Amino acid sequence: MEVQTDPLKVFIVHAHPEEKSFCAAMQRVAVEEFERQGHEVRVSDLYAMKFNPVASKADFNNPSNPHYCSYALEQRHGVATGTISEDIQEELEKLLWCDLLVLNFPIFWFSTPAILKGWIDRVLVSGKIYGGRRFYDFGGLAGKRVLVNVTIGGQEHMFNPDGVHGPLQLLLSHLLRGTLAYTGLQVLSPFIAWHVPYISHNARCEILTTFKKRLASIGSDTPLEFQSLNNFDENMRPIASRGNLFLF
Amino acid sequence: MEVQTDPLKVFIVHAHPEEKSFCAAMQRVAVEEFERQGHEVRVSDLYAMKFNPVASKADFNNPSNPHYCSYALEQRHGVATGTISEDIQEELEKLLWCDLLVLNFPIFWFSTPAILKGWIDRVLVSGKIYGGRRFYDFGGLAGKRVLVNVTIGGQEHMFNPDGVHGPLQLLLSHLLRGTLAYTGLQVLSPFIAWHVPYISHNARCEILTTFKKRLASIGSDTPLEFQSLNNFDENMRPIASRGNLFLF
Repeated sequence: MEVQTDPLKVFIVHAHPEEKSFCAAMQRVAVEEFERQGHEVRVSDLYAMKFNPVASKADFNNPSNPHYCSYALEQRHGVATGTISEDIQEELEKLLWCDLLVLNFPIFWFSTPAILKGWIDRVLVSGKIYGGRRFYDFGGLAGKRVLVNVTIGGQEHMFNPDGVHGPLQLLLSHLLRGTLAYTGLQVLSPFIAWHVPYISHNARCEILTTFKKRLASIGSDTPLEFQSLNNFDENMRPIASRGNLFLF
Repeated sequence: MEVQTDPLKVFIVHAHPEEKSFCAAMQRVAVEEFERQGHEVRVSDLYAMKFNPVASKADFNNPSNPHYCSYALEQRHGVATGTISEDIQEELEKLLWCDLLVLNFPIFWFSTPAILKGWIDRVLVSGKIYGGRRFYDFGGLAGKRVLVNVTIGGQEHMFNPDGVHGPLQLLLSHLLRGTLAYTGLQVLSPFIAWHVPYISHNARCEILTTFKKRLASIGSDTPLEFQSLNNFDENMRPIASRGNLFLF
């Protein structure tokens, strides 16, 4: 059942090396479905943009210290003075504009492709997105939500608690918790397209149908629960135990 | 106490954007210490090499399917026919040559910098390093070992089980388990330099002293324990439970 929601600003970051891939089809379906619902959509197709994923001193047109690059400090200076690299500034504006961030990518080594990791390294800038005590529920992107859509070669049973790899959400904790929840985003349950390289055309179409249904009700999704800084003192010592929340 | 071992072939992959960083000092200390012990050392300094981290169809000089790039399939074809990109081939030769792989990098978002993630995406090729049932203890790099050295801004107590982030090894499970153990490597306990941007010169020198001692006894280190495929049937269904080995 479709849930009516206010129009959203949706920013889709897509990263797949093959434009005819199933993963790219998911990205196009997402654009169509969100626009059909009346949402506003912007897309960064990192491969098509030839996005530079390498964080380096070249990202700072007017570094505060030209002799030693402390990357996070230069991010703060670069954003504050408007001298950070233009490609970072453009992505940052889209990120700050959106209500819902969507990361759409194939799992490479239980993580993002490097081109998307570099987007994270360069665009989630210190001083704006995090820094000091601004992380987790106090992060710079608090109030926004994120949906992670992935394609993966493995089969679902391999990721059961007693499966050969263990839970995928655990392997993705560096992303779901350490990156997305860390910036304050409310992290929705990832959409996972299993075993994609090995399944039939019909099975792929069924995944797209399920995916569309998921997107139609995205406004009423309950986010995953992560750490709250309210449980820690000013030295980040725990005030109260939260059990095994650290798992994901 | 120093443990005598046979000379090792050591391959250090280093990835830090600032050549005057503490992380770069760790890399130089590692080279000196390994050479002092009589080991043979090769280094890939990814920033200095301007290593390309973007996995794409450009990696294949003679693709088996020029109309659709299935990256893993083209890796197999490219390695088998000697037509994979020359920079990948060079890194692959160093990887296959070594007894001990060392990854030396700063933690960016609870993971590797994108330039190192791209080294993983492009160099750990299907068909040679993994593929079919060749993963975990049956992986293509079985018999070799890996040491991960990282610098991190956070303090150690933040990564206690009840700490604000939870165990670092858990956040790094995509790398330690899903990448390194997956390829068959025996994964040594990571060396972690905590709170590096905020500590004194003396504290940094102490870390380097501890680091040297660790390297001096590296030959007798006990690897971490990970999954064995012997616990799974041909459909990757568990034969016997291994408890919570999936945690890391």
